[in-house]
Amino acid sequence: MREHYFIGVDGGGTKCKAVLQNHSGQIIGEGLSGSANPATDLPLAITSIVESCELALQNASVSLSQLQFCHVGMGLAGVNLPSINRKMREWQHPFASVHLTTDLHIACLGAHDGQDGAVIITGTGSSAFAVVDGNQLNLGGHGFTAGDKCGGAWMGLAATKICLEALDGLAQHSALVDSLQQHLKCKDATAIAEVVNGAPAVFFATLAPLVIAAAEQKDVNAEAILKNGAEYLSKLARRLLTHSGERLSMIGGLASFVTPWLDTDVQQRLVKPIHSPDFGALLLAQQQTGVTNSSLLIKKTTIKEAS
Amino acid sequence: MREHYFIGVDGGGTKCKAVLQNHSGQIIGEGLSGSANPATDLPLAITSIVESCELALQNASVSLSQLQFCHVGMGLAGVNLPSINRKMREWQHPFASVHLTTDLHIACLGAHDGQDGAVIITGTGSSAFAVVDGNQLNLGGHGFTAGDKCGGAWMGLAATKICLEALDGLAQHSALVDSLQQHLKCKDATAIAEVVNGAPAVFFATLAPLVIAAAEQKDVNAEAILKNGAEYLSKLARRLLTHSGERLSMIGGLASFVTPWLDTDVQQRLVKPIHSPDFGALLLAQQQTGVTNSSLLIKKTTIKEAS
Repeated sequence: MREHYFIGVDGGGTKCKAVLQNHSGQIIGEGLSGSANPATDLPLAITSIVESCELALQNASVSLSQLQFCHVGMGLAGVNLPSINRKMREWQHPFASVHLTTDLHIACLGAHDGQDGAVIITGTGSSAFAVVDGNQLNLGGHGFTAGDKCGGAWMGLAATKICLEALDGLAQHSALVDSLQQHLKCKDATAIAEVVNGAPAVFFATLAPLVIAAAEQKDVNAEAILKNGAEYLSKLARRLLTHSGERLSMIGGLASFVTPWLDTDVQQRLVKPIHSPDFGALLLAQQQTGVTNSSLLIKKTTIKEAS
Repeated sequence: MREHYFIGVDGGGTKCKAVLQNHSGQIIGEGLSGSANPATDLPLAITSIVESCELALQNASVSLSQLQFCHVGMGLAGVNLPSINRKMREWQHPFASVHLTTDLHIACLGAHDGQDGAVIITGTGSSAFAVVDGNQLNLGGHGFTAGDKCGGAWMGLAATKICLEALDGLAQHSALVDSLQQHLKCKDATAIAEVVNGAPAVFFATLAPLVIAAAEQKDVNAEAILKNGAEYLSKLARRLLTHSGERLSMIGGLASFVTPWLDTDVQQRLVKPIHSPDFGALLLAQQQTGVTNSSLLIKKTTIKEAS
């Protein structure tokens, strides 16, 4: 039997990471490329995905002709949207098989070594995901500004609101207000309003470090923001633990900063994530090809949905 | 001495209203035209302003040749922005004089018959304005989504947030959640997120009537939203009363709905507005031409800033 490979792909808005594993289970290469968000730019996402896989093969000194023997697990943002999912499935990919799921799913698989469990992810946004007995539960992550509470963009917007109220004499002035004004180079509330109106989530997320830094200095406004956001995350955590049992991990760029603000009983039940999301994608490829041996024989252009 | 006229112009995003007054103080005509927001579309705003004034003259059977003897007080949204203000001042207008100020200022002048006082305006957005001894105080009104708390758009967004949390099992389900889902024709949280993401303030403002209707039925979520929004307005009101003394009026499309939610001591200090904003614009024209008789002789193309 010809040797085959597994690749795990973790595609996001800023970068795409691929890890390559040989048949005996060793990680032998990695590749990093650019943006891979199919909801934003599908052709670019496909280019980035293939490039990251090719780089991983090169990194392992494996010929690119072996791409056709690679079973690829892939976690991408946006593929929960039916229209994006459909388009991805029409892709005439160069691999042996592709097993497509969301970025949340591979994060959860990675965090719990492919076993049942749940994750809360806080970065620019926030969301939660659990898998139990093959059933997936997706909570939060409804986007800026109606959802994504306690993500970086939400924190930055919350700080902006407090800053504007403080400058109007309606909220307590604090160091956070000063640091926000300095950061935005705005001398008054009107100038701040002009800068922030219509700004996207990524803009507000750049203000989150100011909130976190101020909270570390016990700034009253910053503490109120984190307390309010963490209340939401604690509710989310309890709902996930009820659904998914024992394993819950906090992941994402803001995880270490928001975790200390969670309710004590929630903090005590958290477990450290075992692997990264790209490794979760690798586990997906293994699970999907292992569960049904016939999947090794699937028509190349058919992308299988992870179950 | 040739007879002269006063015109009061109230220009907004959807319509522009002009009222015409003769030298003996009688209102003799009205004119209504289209959008007059110079921050959105300056040429259209100028067209609408002139049209509303011409219609007011026609309505009073006064020849359009008399436009040049009209002293016009004008309140427009957006002219607090320096760039918009400058452009409006470059306008080669057809009137005897133009006295330009914000929509908030004429609303305040109208509400208090040209005397000192303050107003809180709640419509799609929210904002506050006071005039005392010629000094203006402008609070709130920092736009959707960082400011404009307790305006219609803020209410609609708050309802959307609660609806999404309720559908995730993180907030109490209530009739408001059902009515919002029905209104948006969305069967789940993901569908709602797709509809509302990136939606403008006017979209969320269309949801405000659902909140108000639910609150009248003592819906727990709707009541929480209005209570939270009104807390902000009560703080705003106290600050205005400290600054402006006795006269504070609630105006705008949501005024009658939010007023019962204000703190009792604030409600007791409210006074009914005396005139409408277009009449406030008329008062501005009178004040400005009356205060300095020389203003009747100003160069036609010079637009005076209201002091």
